[in-house]
Amino acid sequence: MEKPIKIALCGIGTVGKGVLELFDKNMALIRQRIGKDIQIVKALEKDPEKIKSSGLTSDQVSDSLDFVLEDPEIDIVIELIGGDTIAKEIILRALDNGKSVVTANKALLAEHSDVIFPATYAAKGFFGFEASVAGGIPVLRNLREGFTGDEISEVSGIINGTANYILSSMTENNDDFETALAEAQKLGYAEADPTFDIEGNDTAHKVCILLNLAYNGLFDFKQIHIEGITKIEPIDIEIAREMGYTIKLLGKAISSEKGYDGRVHPSLIKNNNLLASVKGPFNALLIKGNFLGPTISYGAGAGSHPTASAVVGDIIEIGRLLANDRKHQTFPLSCTNETLIKKELISIDEIETEYYLRLTVQDKAGVLAKVTKIMGDNNISIRSMIQKSENNGSVVSVPVVFFTHNAKEKDVQRSIEQIDQLSFIEQPTRLIRIDA
Amino acid sequence: MEKPIKIALCGIGTVGKGVLELFDKNMALIRQRIGKDIQIVKALEKDPEKIKSSGLTSDQVSDSLDFVLEDPEIDIVIELIGGDTIAKEIILRALDNGKSVVTANKALLAEHSDVIFPATYAAKGFFGFEASVAGGIPVLRNLREGFTGDEISEVSGIINGTANYILSSMTENNDDFETALAEAQKLGYAEADPTFDIEGNDTAHKVCILLNLAYNGLFDFKQIHIEGITKIEPIDIEIAREMGYTIKLLGKAISSEKGYDGRVHPSLIKNNNLLASVKGPFNALLIKGNFLGPTISYGAGAGSHPTASAVVGDIIEIGRLLANDRKHQTFPLSCTNETLIKKELISIDEIETEYYLRLTVQDKAGVLAKVTKIMGDNNISIRSMIQKSENNGSVVSVPVVFFTHNAKEKDVQRSIEQIDQLSFIEQPTRLIRIDA
Repeated sequence: MEKPIKIALCGIGTVGKGVLELFDKNMALIRQRIGKDIQIVKALEKDPEKIKSSGLTSDQVSDSLDFVLEDPEIDIVIELIGGDTIAKEIILRALDNGKSVVTANKALLAEHSDVIFPATYAAKGFFGFEASVAGGIPVLRNLREGFTGDEISEVSGIINGTANYILSSMTENNDDFETALAEAQKLGYAEADPTFDIEGNDTAHKVCILLNLAYNGLFDFKQIHIEGITKIEPIDIEIAREMGYTIKLLGKAISSEKGYDGRVHPSLIKNNNLLASVKGPFNALLIKGNFLGPTISYGAGAGSHPTASAVVGDIIEIGRLLANDRKHQTFPLSCTNETLIKKELISIDEIETEYYLRLTVQDKAGVLAKVTKIMGDNNISIRSMIQKSENNGSVVSVPVVFFTHNAKEKDVQRSIEQIDQLSFIEQPTRLIRIDA
Repeated sequence: MEKPIKIALCGIGTVGKGVLELFDKNMALIRQRIGKDIQIVKALEKDPEKIKSSGLTSDQVSDSLDFVLEDPEIDIVIELIGGDTIAKEIILRALDNGKSVVTANKALLAEHSDVIFPATYAAKGFFGFEASVAGGIPVLRNLREGFTGDEISEVSGIINGTANYILSSMTENNDDFETALAEAQKLGYAEADPTFDIEGNDTAHKVCILLNLAYNGLFDFKQIHIEGITKIEPIDIEIAREMGYTIKLLGKAISSEKGYDGRVHPSLIKNNNLLASVKGPFNALLIKGNFLGPTISYGAGAGSHPTASAVVGDIIEIGRLLANDRKHQTFPLSCTNETLIKKELISIDEIETEYYLRLTVQDKAGVLAKVTKIMGDNNISIRSMIQKSENNGSVVSVPVVFFTHNAKEKDVQRSIEQIDQLSFIEQPTRLIRIDA
């Protein structure tokens, strides 16, 4: 048999172990689908426990980058270390050395897209990054190779399993945020330090990658508006439910006549929207094209096996290219190198949507008149109002919730600033956008 | 500029017109994504009305196959005529002449897979057939290029928009089948002759293509078990609803230790399953892989624009291959030529699932005892029973519905045969499978 395709695995963590298991279990199928033998022959790892559990022999594993990157036998380097220091060096050196690269590293691709993507375009090797966004949903491949005839206007969805698990618990069990987070940590759906998931950064990394691919350009991660879910309270979930909505953390990559709009924030979603039914750690993405119409894909967002499935899908794509001596892969960002340019996002101030505004006011006469006057003066039209009374006799402050018609973000922000200066306002007003 | 990629469009019907519109509207994007100019330069059509509305000049259109197939300038032939006579000749001759082919023809690919696929493997040109199953959902591309690391165990779903539209109307408006069909015809969701859609043949064509691709082999369309929706009555929908189910026409392509199982029939689906929420003409597909877990994709199933989007996605894939002088495309059925073999389906008798059985019985004593004895003797365990009484005093026959636990199809069929011979059975017993 001719020479097999040789792989080096960098990082034997949760996903790396999944990749080893998948190769072990599905090897016959993989060979049949590539038409050539393929083997994991080296790994980069320093943790003795992980090396031991990997099934690789000690002479196959090292913690030296040269061991992997300078070996001319290695065809594909799998980067599963994460972060933007050593991972960045591995990817750039591997591409520079003519190797193909597969990565799941969303932080690196989002925050250093202006370095990584030009390097992939210039490289002789191929590049796969499907596992960086929603492991069980082939959203990047669909944008790059499926919906290529369409002008895409929106890619939005639930792309962080931890945040969705927490919001689902809050919705189903009436838990508060802290209780739901603790439960998610106990069950392994949230990390010990959950900051990146609950504050929206992880979602924003994925939004940046989706922007790059859907709109064929290089976007600046720092222009993405990011809000997490830590300020969502049970009362917000309860009022949303009463009005037929579910609260979800959404990542949005939109293109309209205003420009490119990339943002992450909690949204109220109508219960008859399929996205509202996505529970627990699952992910789902809505893609709209001008001929395609709306499509929704649902699947596992993270976890060892689904992410390994995405990594191996990329390995097989590259394996097929290598097995057939191809010179070119589909362009990593779908467009040609010549048309790949830097692109700007609009500010969050420029967006228009419906809003949920929760005010905490002293329960006395004249309050509503003053608040609604401010909103009217700022061109905000109110669709409905709910006043929650606790009826325990001793209440001095009550929540009042407004659902607005379509309004401009900057008008809404200005209203909130004015409202929050009123003497009878007890707490800062809470804003949640409505996904109409 | 170097020579553009040249396309011939065979058939300017609903989808063909959509393709022309898409090229017209999104040409700048398409060029940017291929990296080369691409043009529709010829069409095959005889209907003067269609030719006139196409915007092509009269010297660009002909009804002679040679006009398109013998022109060495043509790189890609788009077959949108349908059926298995002229369309088959076009595809085989085009491949034989070294041209690439894109088709939406599910009937041909299902009923002649043993001719078409070997021809695509042998051909110098490339082959695209994404539009043959669920236009707005890139299910073929996902199976061929996304979920390639996985052993697939199931591809099931709602893949006929007409049947789903009718069942949705029956569910939402309590219409009977005939009324819902007439309404669907009025709105253009059902054809004048709706046989293929409502009897399940169209779904079965798509199931055959999904079997071929998910399980990397050639399946015989005639082995697929096919039942349509014409026997579903409002009472079935009503009882299903009472028990928390929705009735949908499902196509199923399953692989298990029993073998390959391909079938089309109405199913009761639990309302908390996302597939139960798919309404109107939309399609949705569940795919299960051994590492991926379950994924669901939702989108437009048919229609001029979504189908055109799928056709143009294939054109762009091939355009990129041609623009980059590639010699090989991803294998059309995902596996290599050497591993592509004929495969057998199991018989419907071999399946096991839960069942909904609606008996129509004379309302008298002892009936239930006899029926339940037959079911017990055939190893069928009953989960629940509902007896619908019309209470109008003159009722002589009443419906009795059984929900069974998991049972073997052949045991259930044998029970029904025995039950239907009982003297107090007024109408043949109705069976609907439950998607547990």
